[in-house]
Amino acid sequence: MAPLQTDLPRGRMNNAFDPSAAASLDPGTRRLVERRTRLLGPSYRLFYGTPVELVRARGVQAWDAAGNEYLDAYNNVVSVGHGHPRVVEAIHRQLETLCTHTRYLHEGILDYAERLLPTFGGRLAEEGHLMLTCTGSEANELALRIAKHRTGRSGVIVTSEAYHGNTELTAGISPSMGEFSPLGVWTRRVPTPDSYRLPPEGLGAWLAEHTARQIEDLERRGEGLAAFVVDSLFSSDGVYAEPRTLLGPVADVVRRAGGLFVADEVQCGFGRSGERLWGFQRHGLDPDIVTMGKPMGNGYPVAGIAVVDEVVQRFGQDMRYFNTFGGNTVAVAAARATFDVIEDEGLVANSERVGRYLRERLGTLAARDERLGDVRGAGLYVGVEIVRTRDGKEPDKETASAIVNGLRDRRVLISATGLHGNVLKIRPPLVFREEHAERLVEELDAVLQAV
Amino acid sequence: MAPLQTDLPRGRMNNAFDPSAAASLDPGTRRLVERRTRLLGPSYRLFYGTPVELVRARGVQAWDAAGNEYLDAYNNVVSVGHGHPRVVEAIHRQLETLCTHTRYLHEGILDYAERLLPTFGGRLAEEGHLMLTCTGSEANELALRIAKHRTGRSGVIVTSEAYHGNTELTAGISPSMGEFSPLGVWTRRVPTPDSYRLPPEGLGAWLAEHTARQIEDLERRGEGLAAFVVDSLFSSDGVYAEPRTLLGPVADVVRRAGGLFVADEVQCGFGRSGERLWGFQRHGLDPDIVTMGKPMGNGYPVAGIAVVDEVVQRFGQDMRYFNTFGGNTVAVAAARATFDVIEDEGLVANSERVGRYLRERLGTLAARDERLGDVRGAGLYVGVEIVRTRDGKEPDKETASAIVNGLRDRRVLISATGLHGNVLKIRPPLVFREEHAERLVEELDAVLQAV
Repeated sequence: MAPLQTDLPRGRMNNAFDPSAAASLDPGTRRLVERRTRLLGPSYRLFYGTPVELVRARGVQAWDAAGNEYLDAYNNVVSVGHGHPRVVEAIHRQLETLCTHTRYLHEGILDYAERLLPTFGGRLAEEGHLMLTCTGSEANELALRIAKHRTGRSGVIVTSEAYHGNTELTAGISPSMGEFSPLGVWTRRVPTPDSYRLPPEGLGAWLAEHTARQIEDLERRGEGLAAFVVDSLFSSDGVYAEPRTLLGPVADVVRRAGGLFVADEVQCGFGRSGERLWGFQRHGLDPDIVTMGKPMGNGYPVAGIAVVDEVVQRFGQDMRYFNTFGGNTVAVAAARATFDVIEDEGLVANSERVGRYLRERLGTLAARDERLGDVRGAGLYVGVEIVRTRDGKEPDKETASAIVNGLRDRRVLISATGLHGNVLKIRPPLVFREEHAERLVEELDAVLQAV
Repeated sequence: MAPLQTDLPRGRMNNAFDPSAAASLDPGTRRLVERRTRLLGPSYRLFYGTPVELVRARGVQAWDAAGNEYLDAYNNVVSVGHGHPRVVEAIHRQLETLCTHTRYLHEGILDYAERLLPTFGGRLAEEGHLMLTCTGSEANELALRIAKHRTGRSGVIVTSEAYHGNTELTAGISPSMGEFSPLGVWTRRVPTPDSYRLPPEGLGAWLAEHTARQIEDLERRGEGLAAFVVDSLFSSDGVYAEPRTLLGPVADVVRRAGGLFVADEVQCGFGRSGERLWGFQRHGLDPDIVTMGKPMGNGYPVAGIAVVDEVVQRFGQDMRYFNTFGGNTVAVAAARATFDVIEDEGLVANSERVGRYLRERLGTLAARDERLGDVRGAGLYVGVEIVRTRDGKEPDKETASAIVNGLRDRRVLISATGLHGNVLKIRPPLVFREEHAERLVEELDAVLQAV
């Protein structure tokens, strides 16, 4: 069994603009950057060596202040495309009609829940409830609060480089937030299921074994497991989509220990992973709680959880939940319209088809350039691992960063992820088509020749 | 010095619909309530003995599914009025143009920060930064995370019945969440500054003395104070607006102990308290952090903090902050339009003038009905304390509930607050006018005769 990589430096945001390089920017951009630092302070980061000022976008295209056009291969929030008219109009109509909260009756949220809950299958389809928040962080907060109340325990297991939110509780289960962001006292980690370096056969049993060890540790210290929380595409760990037999054995171990299995679908849900609407379905799971966010309202702040009735009963008896904006009439209108578009435009199938096409084309590039060590992912969530040599598989953060910035200069927007920041993260709106994949691959080819 | 009321039962939501009473509802409402319980689960609460199904609203008016019209004297989120066309159009225009996040440059957020920061005065105007989240809970989370990182301590002091959010950390400083919601290990409380029962002279020194004792306790246990967090209108404690000399002495004690003073303006900000834009300004304070939320985007989920540069420097060096939807281009457009309307329609002055008129008219009612024990508040945040007798001042939750429900049946929407749920909470959109106040008082008069 491979050792847990706990001693590596924590991943920091790769490809962030370095403020000390401001002098090299054109005067207009420099003034904007300086004004931003003065007004927004030291915590905000910008993408790219030369930050981009976006002013307009449509579908998978965006334009900067100078009128340059970009291919957006990164923004998963505007999942059905920037400025989709059906979503825009649904929000506009509801804004004009009524914007208020869940302490009044309203059919909108009930209609949406009736549409959404059956898509999860299993117990969530049969006896699940929908609870709405504004952000994925709030969704994971709510899931953890329910899990802790239900089990009477505080232990939470996540993967080595996970990201689950920016509140204290969710940052406490987000090792990727960096070395100064404290993990929770009862947070335990299992290693990244690195399908590029570990043998795929038995990877599920391997991860289940690691999970069992962490559960034992929690129990030995008198706490025990509340929940195992996982993004089934391992977005922050470096994008791992295979094998699909990975999470089943883990879920079994978690259940036997009386813990809840929480599928964090904030990144991988709503068709992102292709084939099915939800990432966990690729692993054949029946989660206790599913959390959702980012693409749910195509940019409107709406997020939430689906939770099995029996799991939330005690929490519901003891505590009310109210979120001022969560589930407001406009948020629900945005979510319904987004869901309708995914269905009516066949975007799950598109995600699958175009994602596969993109990975094939990237694979062709990789076959003749050993720096592209691994092309992986599912649907329109694609990771390309950049390494020094094919055989050594040494992570190459510098080249990854040069590629991301080279693409930005050629007006294609992507980013990078993983512990070493060396995995290209390609995650376009779901309306991405073959010709867009073609353009991305051509530009990447040109960048590779220059780097 | 009055004893700290720690042994009273924790306040629960008054005037919530009791699901066991569903049989008494008309068939249409009953079906909707049952469908809601099935789809949304056990944690959601509805207002009123007979829940209201709102379908449309404009200004301070709302309509239910049967076409009945209501006077909305409660919804502070749609602060510049339901469906205000300027805000609706600003959101619509920006939705069509661009909806993306803070890792790209955008002038919108900078223009807004430049408008907003000077309004705080003091250090925030001189060297403050704006950081945007989606909800007030997230704003208070961020404020606490900064305070803890800055001071290296975890102690937080709040008032006895405070509410500051629904995440684990913010629920942990929200005693009003009820007996099953755990307070933080380092949360300490000071009593409600009950200006109705305690002598107004010396109330500031009294609260400062209580604060000093809690700081001593935190220090004795080796922790110390990170922050004192307060809503200067004490919304959940029962609405206390006087004396304005209350919080100055507390702030001094907090500063001397090296703690941060956090003004939670989620409820009392953006003109709600009349006279000035911010509630803390009525107390002449210069906070280290201000948190904002609810009315900021007139219903669009936008919230945030203003923080003094020196306070956030270390946090910013050690940790990045990113919130997918927080500060997105549409959220900023909503916030800017809302701010413009407050200014252009003179809504701070309206809040002050109409709030004063409403309190005067309510005072006239109180003069001839001893159940209205106290009429208080600032601007358009008005509390009316319901008691059994003028002299005894015994809280009367049942009568308060009967009044709230009686008004609902006469189509005027308010609620109740405070530890005993016996303080009528009147908090209409800021476009409330004298004629609306008149209607509210007339209906209240009729209800009082029937109760």
